[in-house]
Amino acid sequence: MAHDIRIVTEAQLREAIQLDLTAVDVIEEAFAALAGGEVVMPPILSMDLPQANGEVDVKTAYIPGFDGFAIKVSPGFFDNPTLGLPSLNGLMMLFSARTGLVEAVFLDNGYLTDIRTAAAGAVAAWHLAPAVVETAGVIGTGVQARLQMQAAHLVRPFSRLLVNGRDPAKAEACAADLRATLGIEVEVCADSETLVRNSQLVVTTTPARAPLIMADWLHPGLHITAIGSDQSGKNEIDPKALAAADLYVCDRVSQCETSGELEAARAAGLMLRTPPELGQIITGQVKGRLGPSAITICDLTGTGAQDTAIATHVAKIMGDAGTVIPV
Amino acid sequence: MAHDIRIVTEAQLREAIQLDLTAVDVIEEAFAALAGGEVVMPPILSMDLPQANGEVDVKTAYIPGFDGFAIKVSPGFFDNPTLGLPSLNGLMMLFSARTGLVEAVFLDNGYLTDIRTAAAGAVAAWHLAPAVVETAGVIGTGVQARLQMQAAHLVRPFSRLLVNGRDPAKAEACAADLRATLGIEVEVCADSETLVRNSQLVVTTTPARAPLIMADWLHPGLHITAIGSDQSGKNEIDPKALAAADLYVCDRVSQCETSGELEAARAAGLMLRTPPELGQIITGQVKGRLGPSAITICDLTGTGAQDTAIATHVAKIMGDAGTVIPV
Repeated sequence: MAHDIRIVTEAQLREAIQLDLTAVDVIEEAFAALAGGEVVMPPILSMDLPQANGEVDVKTAYIPGFDGFAIKVSPGFFDNPTLGLPSLNGLMMLFSARTGLVEAVFLDNGYLTDIRTAAAGAVAAWHLAPAVVETAGVIGTGVQARLQMQAAHLVRPFSRLLVNGRDPAKAEACAADLRATLGIEVEVCADSETLVRNSQLVVTTTPARAPLIMADWLHPGLHITAIGSDQSGKNEIDPKALAAADLYVCDRVSQCETSGELEAARAAGLMLRTPPELGQIITGQVKGRLGPSAITICDLTGTGAQDTAIATHVAKIMGDAGTVIPV
Repeated sequence: MAHDIRIVTEAQLREAIQLDLTAVDVIEEAFAALAGGEVVMPPILSMDLPQANGEVDVKTAYIPGFDGFAIKVSPGFFDNPTLGLPSLNGLMMLFSARTGLVEAVFLDNGYLTDIRTAAAGAVAAWHLAPAVVETAGVIGTGVQARLQMQAAHLVRPFSRLLVNGRDPAKAEACAADLRATLGIEVEVCADSETLVRNSQLVVTTTPARAPLIMADWLHPGLHITAIGSDQSGKNEIDPKALAAADLYVCDRVSQCETSGELEAARAAGLMLRTPPELGQIITGQVKGRLGPSAITICDLTGTGAQDTAIATHVAKIMGDAGTVIPV
């Protein structure tokens, strides 16, 4: 009855999987499955810990046809930087979809989440951004700002990139990193309005609680992906912008209405009809971009289906990485 | 920034911790904390997987003053026995309550859950059973039937034990095991009514969906602990018995009303007032047993607070057990 559990560290996972088109395909498949209606994805278990200035989220999803399902724990403890520790960390577990036995524990400190989140941005850009993107813009200067632009560049190889952030030094550092990674022209753009007006593809990657992008900055031939909001009260896009766009798409409506951009829009009395989900665009159940001049917005709160998809994929490609523990 | 994570197997955990009065004290402390109102215990994440004849529960709780908090994953896949595998397994993770960093992964296959569930039965018996119990009875013949009786015997050293189960061979095996473990007279009792009428302490440990104990079997000087119900639709005790008892106590009201005995009672239009919780009895906020002839019932659905308590306790006593993985 003994079985083996594989324990894999962040360093080993970084060897095994990187952000590339294969990862994007894996995440696209997860979104398509979500549209099929047979995925089981319970509400996120969310534990708020004001006494520790922290929060913990647990996500999971079962996707029929996948060999396994993941359960992911994401703690965020915001006093950690004063201790020299990152705020975000956590781990992902992979279970057999047939027996429920634990097969692997990925001690990834959030690395797999970073990859699957960025890959979702690429899926959104692939299906919703204008066919030709010359200039992309990113608002935010953290890990996801970098990864989102790498991911977007895989599917829309833009030649110019604008970076906007509250801290000029961080914006410069982010721009320098992306210049080196992508080998294209990358500029810091101190004014977010200028950034939006000059880009065909914009990604917001911040924990903002007040809109960063206003409705009257929208212009024909623009796609925006908002990935920052993942908790009630967060808001990156002006509710009026959601209403003004030709198409607004959720990763999961039930999540976006409680923790995504849809929450603020609904609170403002806008966007009362149920919007489509990204999976429905992928599978063709709902039409995506109507033409080169359309304005589209995609709201990504992060789904357990992405975690299950990335974890089962890693398990397939990781070879004999990690430590095997017989239990 | 590197930190160590300790991976501990079921065999190593069985060496480190057993069901004893120390474990009972640890669980009593968790229930007392629950009554304090500062525990953060989100609703159970529950994923039903009819396609795999399985289910997965995730529980957690943050208890102020505890060094860590646990997150526990309990899969139940009910076709496993046809593959020679146990239906239930899973693991428990311990996180720092200060930083959210993963400190240990307990690959326990449910062993720690078994211990903390049995210990809760002892806490209930300690605070609610008559001071003198000569005969105890258990309905159910599985692992928890054995452990519940071991736990109860720690706090009410009864001299005679009755065992009832649907399968006579399993009942005999359970009785034989308990005879050997406890060194007392243990008999199989084929009739559950006779068992209840002759016992001062009864524990039900089954997945029943129709009552096993009827109201007119209750008698002065009886305490019943029901531990089997942990999902909507499960029901071990006649709703009229809950109403007829002098005192009905929940481990957590919010759980008992959706997945414990309270669910069926409420559906029958009974028990509409909010009952007390075990922690309130422990801390003296609510009076427990009123005298030797009172009839009391305790409904245990299993709480994340118990998981956090047992996991932090194990971490303290396990010494250098397990495999250290630097991440």
